[in-house]
Amino acid sequence: MRLVDLIRRKRDGHELTAAEIEFVVGGYTAGDFPDYQIAAWLMAVLLKGMTRAEIAALTSAMLRSGEVLDWSHLPGKKVDKHSTGGVGDKTSLIIAPIVAAAGVYVPMISGRGLGHTGGTLDKLEAIPGFRVDLDSKRMEQVLAASHVCLIGQTASIVPADKKMYALRDVTGTVESPALICASIMSKKLAEGIDALVLDVKTGSGAFMKQEADAVHLAELMVETGELMGKKVIALITDMDQPLGRHVGNALEVMECVEVLKGGGPKDLVDLSHDLAAWMIYLGGAAKSVDEARELSVKLIASGVALRWKSSARSSVCKTAMQKPSMISLCCPKRRTT
Amino acid sequence: MRLVDLIRRKRDGHELTAAEIEFVVGGYTAGDFPDYQIAAWLMAVLLKGMTRAEIAALTSAMLRSGEVLDWSHLPGKKVDKHSTGGVGDKTSLIIAPIVAAAGVYVPMISGRGLGHTGGTLDKLEAIPGFRVDLDSKRMEQVLAASHVCLIGQTASIVPADKKMYALRDVTGTVESPALICASIMSKKLAEGIDALVLDVKTGSGAFMKQEADAVHLAELMVETGELMGKKVIALITDMDQPLGRHVGNALEVMECVEVLKGGGPKDLVDLSHDLAAWMIYLGGAAKSVDEARELSVKLIASGVALRWKSSARSSVCKTAMQKPSMISLCCPKRRTT
Repeated sequence: MRLVDLIRRKRDGHELTAAEIEFVVGGYTAGDFPDYQIAAWLMAVLLKGMTRAEIAALTSAMLRSGEVLDWSHLPGKKVDKHSTGGVGDKTSLIIAPIVAAAGVYVPMISGRGLGHTGGTLDKLEAIPGFRVDLDSKRMEQVLAASHVCLIGQTASIVPADKKMYALRDVTGTVESPALICASIMSKKLAEGIDALVLDVKTGSGAFMKQEADAVHLAELMVETGELMGKKVIALITDMDQPLGRHVGNALEVMECVEVLKGGGPKDLVDLSHDLAAWMIYLGGAAKSVDEARELSVKLIASGVALRWKSSARSSVCKTAMQKPSMISLCCPKRRTT
Repeated sequence: MRLVDLIRRKRDGHELTAAEIEFVVGGYTAGDFPDYQIAAWLMAVLLKGMTRAEIAALTSAMLRSGEVLDWSHLPGKKVDKHSTGGVGDKTSLIIAPIVAAAGVYVPMISGRGLGHTGGTLDKLEAIPGFRVDLDSKRMEQVLAASHVCLIGQTASIVPADKKMYALRDVTGTVESPALICASIMSKKLAEGIDALVLDVKTGSGAFMKQEADAVHLAELMVETGELMGKKVIALITDMDQPLGRHVGNALEVMECVEVLKGGGPKDLVDLSHDLAAWMIYLGGAAKSVDEARELSVKLIASGVALRWKSSARSSVCKTAMQKPSMISLCCPKRRTT
């Protein structure tokens, strides 16, 4: 197998096999291939696209390029959320304690800001003394003790993505749904989760300006997750204007505390409950999404989420349902075969 | 201007300006840009194509990346021929002395074999003691004395193409008509010629298997030459079977001598006269292509081409016209504006 032949085959619109994709990703991670060949391959992928099978193979190869965390000794489901990012998007800081308080493990590995949006890590670091650089051993201790841990990416997780993303950034190959899907899904699945809730933003302040593009990416990620045996759901949500009223790392942390205290702007509160509800439901801590949403609302109303630091689970109680803040929902298409 | 923005614009199918293309080529030649960014740009060019104006700008930028030879002090036109290559294609060795004997300067810079075909330099080196590594000063002496000089490419001519071709070879970006056109035309125009005859091969033994592809490349090269103020004509010729009866460097040299002695296989003889005729005509040594072809035939019949070593011009005499061996002819489209 020669890399130049795989570049030419992708350039000519052919489908690569899982073994061929593994050859590209594994070889690049190992330092066997020069950046210029991978850059040409990435541009061919961007312009010619990938089939669902190719995207799953790419995700799998990237996932296996490094450490895959394993929390199977911790009793219960592990669920994470990922947002494609937007201005004022701060829901992770709100839903992480809610979902943990509902009895679901949340091993959250977050990123830095991309483009004009701040990342969860940047926001957390606005809290003096907050450390995001825990290794997987320390992460395990925190997760076991409190059901939730928010850290930054470690060098051992998906090294293929680190190398490939740095190259994509300077070669005009970021905007490929296939490459975006594999990058996000490989990092999230390396967290050792059972289920994943995706918040795919669309609108003028989002990476995907057009709703159709957001839906397409959401479908790719949901299908890829399904092909890899995980429960994945995607909410397509609005990013035509900033989420909440505060933008800026420290201000956003303050707004999250406000929401956890039972206040905060309606759009942020609604979306946080929607996302938390799906995480709680997929984490098996509620029988339905509605029940999970009621639990989420209750965990804020009772102050449990705000004060959350143990793994004690609150009791479920009924509250009025609020109108969901999402535009649409992308679920796995159940196969009839 | 940032290279990554130009990669993205070409990726998205936009036309780049001459200044933008100069920025890419000049920066790459100067070592300012890494191979991986140029590789991504080349793949975007291959998959999105280039307009005629972009190809002319690329050719011009590549041409200006190094030395452009100047023979304006030598009295008379300088004309070269370029073939896209095929099995048994050895016409350069036959037509160079014919055209020189007709009074036209032939400053021919040739290449090595590409793929399965041997290059003119490889064939010349089958002659013991033949040197192809003359510098431009020595080339000038030979050209002034005998009207003809066949050498290999020097390091100072179109360095952009040397760097770019090496990168294209390993990144699956060879097969782009725009890039092929700019590569060929920049090298040929750097020879300081007034006119160029192109032999664009098509068929199972050629780089372009389909006649339509060969015609497309021929049109690009003729138009690019015209945009740069040169007389360029392209003959589309058959390469479904080897040219002549001999294949292999030393054997091909022997066959060329056979043709210059008045023998040789008809297909090779015919094509050689066709190409020589256009070179003689564009070089101003005949009033029509027919007259030039007659002169070519005469220069073989008389033994002048075989024995050629001075710039003495033979007299024109009439001989019977042979059926042209070309499939079609690609001439500049004269603009009505």
